[in-house]
Amino acid sequence: MARTWVPVPDGSPFPLTALPYGVLALGGAPARPWVAVGDHAADLGVLEQAGVFRGTGLAAASFAGATLNAFVAQGPEVWSAVRARLVDVLSGPAPTGVPETAVVERRLLRAALPVAVGDYVDFYSSLHHATNLGRLFRPGGEALLPNWRHLPVGYHGRSGTLVPDGDTVWRPSGLRLVDGEVVFGPTRALDIELEVGAVVGVGSERGRPVAADDAGRHLFGLCLVNDWSARDIQSFEYQPLGPFLGKSFATSVSPWLVPLEALEPFRCAGPEQHPPVAGYLRTSAPWGFDLHLEVHLQSAAMRAAGLPAVQVSAVSFADMYWSFAQQLAHLTVNGASVRPGDLLASGTVSGADPGSEGSLIERTWGGTRPFALPDGSERTYLLDGDQVELRGWAGTGPGRIGLGSVRGTVQPSPQIDEEGR
Amino acid sequence: MARTWVPVPDGSPFPLTALPYGVLALGGAPARPWVAVGDHAADLGVLEQAGVFRGTGLAAASFAGATLNAFVAQGPEVWSAVRARLVDVLSGPAPTGVPETAVVERRLLRAALPVAVGDYVDFYSSLHHATNLGRLFRPGGEALLPNWRHLPVGYHGRSGTLVPDGDTVWRPSGLRLVDGEVVFGPTRALDIELEVGAVVGVGSERGRPVAADDAGRHLFGLCLVNDWSARDIQSFEYQPLGPFLGKSFATSVSPWLVPLEALEPFRCAGPEQHPPVAGYLRTSAPWGFDLHLEVHLQSAAMRAAGLPAVQVSAVSFADMYWSFAQQLAHLTVNGASVRPGDLLASGTVSGADPGSEGSLIERTWGGTRPFALPDGSERTYLLDGDQVELRGWAGTGPGRIGLGSVRGTVQPSPQIDEEGR
Repeated sequence: MARTWVPVPDGSPFPLTALPYGVLALGGAPARPWVAVGDHAADLGVLEQAGVFRGTGLAAASFAGATLNAFVAQGPEVWSAVRARLVDVLSGPAPTGVPETAVVERRLLRAALPVAVGDYVDFYSSLHHATNLGRLFRPGGEALLPNWRHLPVGYHGRSGTLVPDGDTVWRPSGLRLVDGEVVFGPTRALDIELEVGAVVGVGSERGRPVAADDAGRHLFGLCLVNDWSARDIQSFEYQPLGPFLGKSFATSVSPWLVPLEALEPFRCAGPEQHPPVAGYLRTSAPWGFDLHLEVHLQSAAMRAAGLPAVQVSAVSFADMYWSFAQQLAHLTVNGASVRPGDLLASGTVSGADPGSEGSLIERTWGGTRPFALPDGSERTYLLDGDQVELRGWAGTGPGRIGLGSVRGTVQPSPQIDEEGR
Repeated sequence: MARTWVPVPDGSPFPLTALPYGVLALGGAPARPWVAVGDHAADLGVLEQAGVFRGTGLAAASFAGATLNAFVAQGPEVWSAVRARLVDVLSGPAPTGVPETAVVERRLLRAALPVAVGDYVDFYSSLHHATNLGRLFRPGGEALLPNWRHLPVGYHGRSGTLVPDGDTVWRPSGLRLVDGEVVFGPTRALDIELEVGAVVGVGSERGRPVAADDAGRHLFGLCLVNDWSARDIQSFEYQPLGPFLGKSFATSVSPWLVPLEALEPFRCAGPEQHPPVAGYLRTSAPWGFDLHLEVHLQSAAMRAAGLPAVQVSAVSFADMYWSFAQQLAHLTVNGASVRPGDLLASGTVSGADPGSEGSLIERTWGGTRPFALPDGSERTYLLDGDQVELRGWAGTGPGRIGLGSVRGTVQPSPQIDEEGR
């Protein structure tokens, strides 16, 4: 390790096998592309200008903008060549022509969104989550709706309110049913959804579906997504066109996009699908990923008392029913096109066991089973001041690599009166 | 008329009181901003470079790009000053310094999208449409769901498949129920939705709702929208997260954005709302618009025989239940932000009377009441080769101005087998 240019501490989420990409701001400068290594990050624009990527096929000025879109649009050959070059460069001594200032401590960087997202589609791909919500919303009925095992159910979210790590989440106001009356006010059921997102690199043309087996030529990498939800607003509004204001106020995205290439060692088969799925949803290679995900919560009182966040939930991504390859094939089978930067989120990741629920509505069974926090308070849904952090790893052993984390802190509803002012 | 630089024929949809903006391509050149006058259009970039907008407050290079986003983001004072200057310039002789080539016949231009749309939200704001669909989908039940009269129901559509006038619409494939079996294949229920779209000019900040009475400071203008729909795909997929593949394959947008300022004379009060709506949805000024909308259809056989399109439907927009001001206030009341170029569509515009339905599922009552075409064929849903044109006008008398039109022609499903290839 001594001979490497950038040190990588043991157990770091970002060893040389990870090399995730992000867009972050240093001081007051505009956000720009970086690659993470250990506790540091290297400035991709500076490396590019120093000629580090010469011969990789990377287009000129790929890292000169404020997003990774230009880079991820270039496809697997370029992704792979750039990654190999970065491993070379970062595992040796500092290359000539690269100023020392090209590498900074990661803690000095403030996250922006890694890509400009054109369309954001949120799926519903966890069997356990869909079953839990079915039981909660339709007690006595079939937990799963008739379409669920035939196709990856999904809908479009609001791309304009995707927010980076650390951005404030204001408690949303809206109309909800209280004792049978329609009432306007701040949500009383603010929730999170633990999700994994896949970012589209190479786009597709309208009228030309992407085959599930070609998904690897289009999907660039994974991140963590917190799909903040206001359950009371959502439940009043969502019939018949789906969730809208209950979701659209904020969706947090983690800073570091981990390339699928780095995640190859963690591929695994998903669960068997019954009934068999339509041909366009079949893949010949495994498209599950052995990811370990956690939800951590810290109240304002805990923060003030110096108490660390506590783990609320931990779950494996490995048994997700629908894969990202299936989601992409489904999304495009009607001829819809995708663009570089489009985000496909998995939907809430929940497991079969208690403590593996990816949302508070499941964790507290509709708000009826509160859990205790170290500050002596209880939680069903989130209170103002609560900070939620999602964390993720690929693998669990010594070779594991991180997906990083994404945080958001709940702030009181802006002063809005009944007039919306 | 003789003294004007650009002639305006009597009865033109685009007299000097209209002056809609669009982005269109001339020959092989990249699409750029134009303003329509009579049968002609003037090149806004050329006018800008000639100094025509000096003193209006217009930012430099506002018309130099391939979208109108930079212009519409500048707000009502600039919109108004630019419009006044255009009236001056276009109603007089050709200004010095402006080459003759700045004005071309509109028929020579090929439409692109007028704005780059970040988020596209489709509402459900016609009482007659929501009632019709409720009766069709839930026979015997209440036609309107409990939330419908309390809030403008809406959901996010796919912004990446908004397409300009004239773009092909490929028949989408997907999973649907046939005699109780889940079957993959091209839709057999391809429909249209006649809608009006409002384009956001000035964006808003996250956490800061837009008051309904401030909508005029944010909304720039109106266009026509055809929200193509595959009813069989939609009905199998839409529970519980709303429409997805049944809509996302294509949504056509008309070329010419008519500024709200041009539509002021056509403002009207909407219907009274019962029960009274929440404060944030109340407006002090009227936000209805007296628009007249039509659906025209021409089959491939009619086209081959030289038969013009026939009118399938005609409807007034004046009695839409929810207004664009209410839609914008609702969309942002949870703290969601809007960006310049965002599109808010009205949802299908249907009237109370036969022949005023804005979709074929209503017009043919779920496909059970076909209508005849002049080529001797019948229609319930669309067949390959059918061309649909939406047309719109503000007002009906001599002072009326046009919203233009938007066309799309159905092409057969691309050859996709069960494997999605």
